[in-house]
Amino acid sequence: MDVKASSPAGATSAGLSLYEFAARLYPICRSITGAGVRETLTLIRTRVPLVVHEVPSGTRVFDWEIPPEWNVEDAAVIDADGRRVVDFQAHNLHLVSYSEPVQTSLSLEELSARLHVLPEQPEWIPYRTSYYRRSWGFCMRARDRAALRAGRYRIEVNSSLAPGSLTYGELLIAGRTREEVLFFTHVCHPSLANDNTSGMAVTTALAEWIAREPRLFTYRFVFAPGTIGSLTWLKRNESRLPRVRHALVLALLGDPGALTYKRSRRETSEIDEIVAYVLAGDGAVIPFSPYGYDERQLCSPGFDLPAGRLTRSVNGGYPQYHTSADDLSLITPAALQGSFETCQRIVDVIESNRRYVNLKPKGEPRLGARGLYGALGGSEPAAHQYAMLWVLNQSDGTRSLLDIAQRSGLPFATLRDAARSLESARLLACPRGKSSVRAVAGRNTRRSKP
Amino acid sequence: MDVKASSPAGATSAGLSLYEFAARLYPICRSITGAGVRETLTLIRTRVPLVVHEVPSGTRVFDWEIPPEWNVEDAAVIDADGRRVVDFQAHNLHLVSYSEPVQTSLSLEELSARLHVLPEQPEWIPYRTSYYRRSWGFCMRARDRAALRAGRYRIEVNSSLAPGSLTYGELLIAGRTREEVLFFTHVCHPSLANDNTSGMAVTTALAEWIAREPRLFTYRFVFAPGTIGSLTWLKRNESRLPRVRHALVLALLGDPGALTYKRSRRETSEIDEIVAYVLAGDGAVIPFSPYGYDERQLCSPGFDLPAGRLTRSVNGGYPQYHTSADDLSLITPAALQGSFETCQRIVDVIESNRRYVNLKPKGEPRLGARGLYGALGGSEPAAHQYAMLWVLNQSDGTRSLLDIAQRSGLPFATLRDAARSLESARLLACPRGKSSVRAVAGRNTRRSKP
Amino acid sequence: MDVKASSPAGATSAGLSLYEFAARLYPICRSITGAGVRETLTLIRTRVPLVVHEVPSGTRVFDWEIPPEWNVEDAAVIDADGRRVVDFQAHNLHLVSYSEPVQTSLSLEELSARLHVLPEQPEWIPYRTSYYRRSWGFCMRARDRAALRAGRYRIEVNSSLAPGSLTYGELLIAGRTREEVLFFTHVCHPSLANDNTSGMAVTTALAEWIAREPRLFTYRFVFAPGTIGSLTWLKRNESRLPRVRHALVLALLGDPGALTYKRSRRETSEIDEIVAYVLAGDGAVIPFSPYGYDERQLCSPGFDLPAGRLTRSVNGGYPQYHTSADDLSLITPAALQGSFETCQRIVDVIESNRRYVNLKPKGEPRLGARGLYGALGGSEPAAHQYAMLWVLNQSDGTRSLLDIAQRSGLPFATLRDAARSLESARLLACPRGKSSVRAVAGRNTRRSKP
Repeated sequence: MDVKASSPAGATSAGLSLYEFAARLYPICRSITGAGVRETLTLIRTRVPLVVHEVPSGTRVFDWEIPPEWNVEDAAVIDADGRRVVDFQAHNLHLVSYSEPVQTSLSLEELSARLHVLPEQPEWIPYRTSYYRRSWGFCMRARDRAALRAGRYRIEVNSSLAPGSLTYGELLIAGRTREEVLFFTHVCHPSLANDNTSGMAVTTALAEWIAREPRLFTYRFVFAPGTIGSLTWLKRNESRLPRVRHALVLALLGDPGALTYKRSRRETSEIDEIVAYVLAGDGAVIPFSPYGYDERQLCSPGFDLPAGRLTRSVNGGYPQYHTSADDLSLITPAALQGSFETCQRIVDVIESNRRYVNLKPKGEPRLGARGLYGALGGSEPAAHQYAMLWVLNQSDGTRSLLDIAQRSGLPFATLRDAARSLESARLLACPRGKSSVRAVAGRNTRRSKP
Repeated sequence: MDVKASSPAGATSAGLSLYEFAARLYPICRSITGAGVRETLTLIRTRVPLVVHEVPSGTRVFDWEIPPEWNVEDAAVIDADGRRVVDFQAHNLHLVSYSEPVQTSLSLEELSARLHVLPEQPEWIPYRTSYYRRSWGFCMRARDRAALRAGRYRIEVNSSLAPGSLTYGELLIAGRTREEVLFFTHVCHPSLANDNTSGMAVTTALAEWIAREPRLFTYRFVFAPGTIGSLTWLKRNESRLPRVRHALVLALLGDPGALTYKRSRRETSEIDEIVAYVLAGDGAVIPFSPYGYDERQLCSPGFDLPAGRLTRSVNGGYPQYHTSADDLSLITPAALQGSFETCQRIVDVIESNRRYVNLKPKGEPRLGARGLYGALGGSEPAAHQYAMLWVLNQSDGTRSLLDIAQRSGLPFATLRDAARSLESARLLACPRGKSSVRAVAGRNTRRSKP
Repeated sequence: MDVKASSPAGATSAGLSLYEFAARLYPICRSITGAGVRETLTLIRTRVPLVVHEVPSGTRVFDWEIPPEWNVEDAAVIDADGRRVVDFQAHNLHLVSYSEPVQTSLSLEELSARLHVLPEQPEWIPYRTSYYRRSWGFCMRARDRAALRAGRYRIEVNSSLAPGSLTYGELLIAGRTREEVLFFTHVCHPSLANDNTSGMAVTTALAEWIAREPRLFTYRFVFAPGTIGSLTWLKRNESRLPRVRHALVLALLGDPGALTYKRSRRETSEIDEIVAYVLAGDGAVIPFSPYGYDERQLCSPGFDLPAGRLTRSVNGGYPQYHTSADDLSLITPAALQGSFETCQRIVDVIESNRRYVNLKPKGEPRLGARGLYGALGGSEPAAHQYAMLWVLNQSDGTRSLLDIAQRSGLPFATLRDAARSLESARLLACPRGKSSVRAVAGRNTRRSKP
């Protein structure tokens, strides 16, 4: 595929680089365990220093158990003439994920219930899984299914389901405080471009960018299989969850649909306000629902993390979803780049959205005497001065800069700059404690090397 | 009157049965005390085992006192030719309710101030009362009034105002908990069909239906005269009021107007949410106001019960209100049946609207392993499965199924069924205590025999 | 100027009287200190018995310090021919307020940066100040500036900047309670008619009117220079601030724009509800912002008083703002009168907006037995009776009459009259304590003589 040919107007080298990385991830046959996940994480480790965790099959994870590890050598349905009429080598979606090993011969009629098609989309191969019930099956184009002749077929599923482990990758970028911002992306889908090579590419680039300079918050990135992977991470990190100040699931970020933020279960978490603010006028905000990606687990009532989700189209929201048509022609450099830049803007607001306290709260302080205000009175103040008045007036420790942006209608960046001016003039301070960010005490705060 | 002739499309035998019962109640001359109320309750007792209470005249009831009992033998205005030009026998609305006994003769001019008419509706007799000031008077068609000739008239009011009692009926249907749902309907109006033979008929049928099977809540039905009757019940049951979880005044349920729910004084009682949900798209919800029927007393600030009111047209909201035109031609079997079925739906939600607790709140539990979820992944969950995810996600003991219905947009019944599936699978429980229904301890919970 | 000629239809003698007083205040050269403020307060004292406070230069006021007192004898820019091409005697806006004394001679080029004009409005003189940085300058019409020829000019600023004092006036009108209603108006602007001879005129008339009869609240009027004046008052009255129940800044009340209420920082103070109610349909309500007049100081986070602001056009909201075109032709008797009458209505609601307690809260009390209700039942209650039912139902000590007006849709005055009837009948009482108005105990409650 010629990436440049499909690159729409607006994509720069950043977009192309995201696209190229997604294209490298695309061919790998991932599932919730197995070699495909490891290969994927190895590729990502060429960019950011992931720690790779292996958790043995059989480990209890809340109500679940890590399943046997699944790997596939080959799989096909072979007709009487020896032709591979359904061929895993041609497309990894052809095999139902977690299909058990099979060597048998069946009539077309006997085989029929094992062959999954999309009658409405005869050219597309559906994506199906059977993680927790031993079974096997094939997915194929409805057109190809219709062409099968009666007769016997040889079934070869050269897979293994054996004790092994579940694999996930994690990256910690320590900031000045131990409070954490958590990014989650799923790595369990095989050759589906938007779902989720797009999410993996954007998350990787975001981790690189965050590691580039010192940050207030500690950032944690988890690249894990959906559901069982996030449950495993939650189980192994339960004691750390109270430190999670914001969480964001990143997925489906390469299709041409508008950006869509799904609120956290709490609906009014700070992350909900932040992303809604960043997307304003340029994306949709939808309410929480308990279906989708790993926000299902992060937002279960026993955790109830402040976890939202950023996608373009939503799961099930585009025709190609969970079919072979979710390929590299569905995603674009420009869409990936826009998603990435939105994530950057979100991080910028997360880093700056403090609750300040006015240190001279009785009346206005003399801004002019501190060189912060024009000396000649009688005309309207400039935006920066007006922003200082807003920050001073509202900063009683209960309102964040984003609250002030929403109340005043002033841009967040203008208020952030005003707050910095006031902090420099010792008119404003950011108190330690609950209402703002807790500082790290007696702890190594050097960030991990990217 | 031929009931079948006036029966609109849509009424079944249930509607006809409601209409026929209203028609039997219609001719009785009721007031706030007296034989008419007793006769009414006797008719209702042929259907449900009301306990009839008699409270003596002179009993103090908060700021009020039970008045002397009023009964009428006969009343008429008789002209010089001996003709009964206004005749209580022809229509009981002709006599002002609570008219004291009179035997006198007056000129038309002297009589004039005692004759009440509706100039705008010359064919209709108005309904007037004088409960608490001794007086007498007649109501008549304006057309008939205009035909009266000057001259003397004999006045015969053969009534009695004497120590007696106020009468009301009560039915308790015990459920598994002692928390009560209270239904109130007024029995003090004479021959007015919508106001309130309709309410009495629907309330009686509802009591029959509720008694037919075991219930979670205890249901109490009060058939009492308006104002003084509800005050008397409140006075005698003051210690029981904290048990009232929901209350609903039922009246004016037979006219062709749309169903109208009037919120409780609290405006956001659970009963307000329930009835608004049941009526959604098919009826109106209006704010509380301190005028109307017995919700005035139930919602006085000293009680502030969670008491709403269900009517079709509202008091004063239809031209025939409080006139002889509120007769059996105004009400219809279909309207009565629709009102009754709405009451049934309200009770269904009341019974099922629990606040559950997810017993596996950390992550999603494995629904597939419990046979609650399709084993093959990759496609969208069915409604029942989606409802289970919603119930599990939201059930932290603070949200009722109705809250979840409103948040999810799923039908209440689908969520109720999902909750039952989850409860059977021991994934969900309904905690005892404040946030849900208090269970009865050490108490006979057999319901009274209907 | 012929006042009558400019008087629009609708203005009566009250409007003319307000206008005439504004016209008397107009010529005075006010600033934040000095003789102009004293002369202004002397004029106001001919109407109401202001106490005049003098606070010495150099006094610390929170983050500020009272500046040297400024007075001007004369100021001019004089050309080579001895003509006063910019002349303070012609208009006091010609001199930048707080200009330091100067005797010098400059080329036009050297002088240029000291000459302020409005290029867009060549006929108007701008208003400029330099309170806290020693400087000097002149303001002039752009047209006149363009006519200046190259050459040398003599500069004469015969002003003084010397230790003295800041002057403000205060009037206390004691009511039955010590809780205070505070009216603030700024007296620091020179010949600007709307900003703020209009505010001074309306505030003076309001004080006269309030003093005319006994009041529930204690009323305090402060006539002070903007910013440093209100800060000085706040500093000297800090211990009294908890008594301030409502505060209102009055300014810009004479132009033809619609009345505009700016909410307090709290946005939902009782004064916010009251003024929004009074203005409903006949004025605008705008959100709080930390720029404008003395509400900036009253609403700083260290005080956060329930202080709103009433103007017609807002600061910066009309072309003539802070220019010589804000003269007596901009303001009208009718506008002043409308502003004054709105203030009266606000005070009427402030005085009557109590939280009552129903003394017979269980059920409705018998209004008929107390002569408060028609004896003959069956027809709709009149507005007064309906209002009594609303007041009785809602009066549990938590809801004010204004809350009831908003909930019921009934006019405030109807509810106030109903409450009075019920209070007379001992069915309602106004409890002492936090939720209503605290009564004065052991204190002289005679109001000061107007």
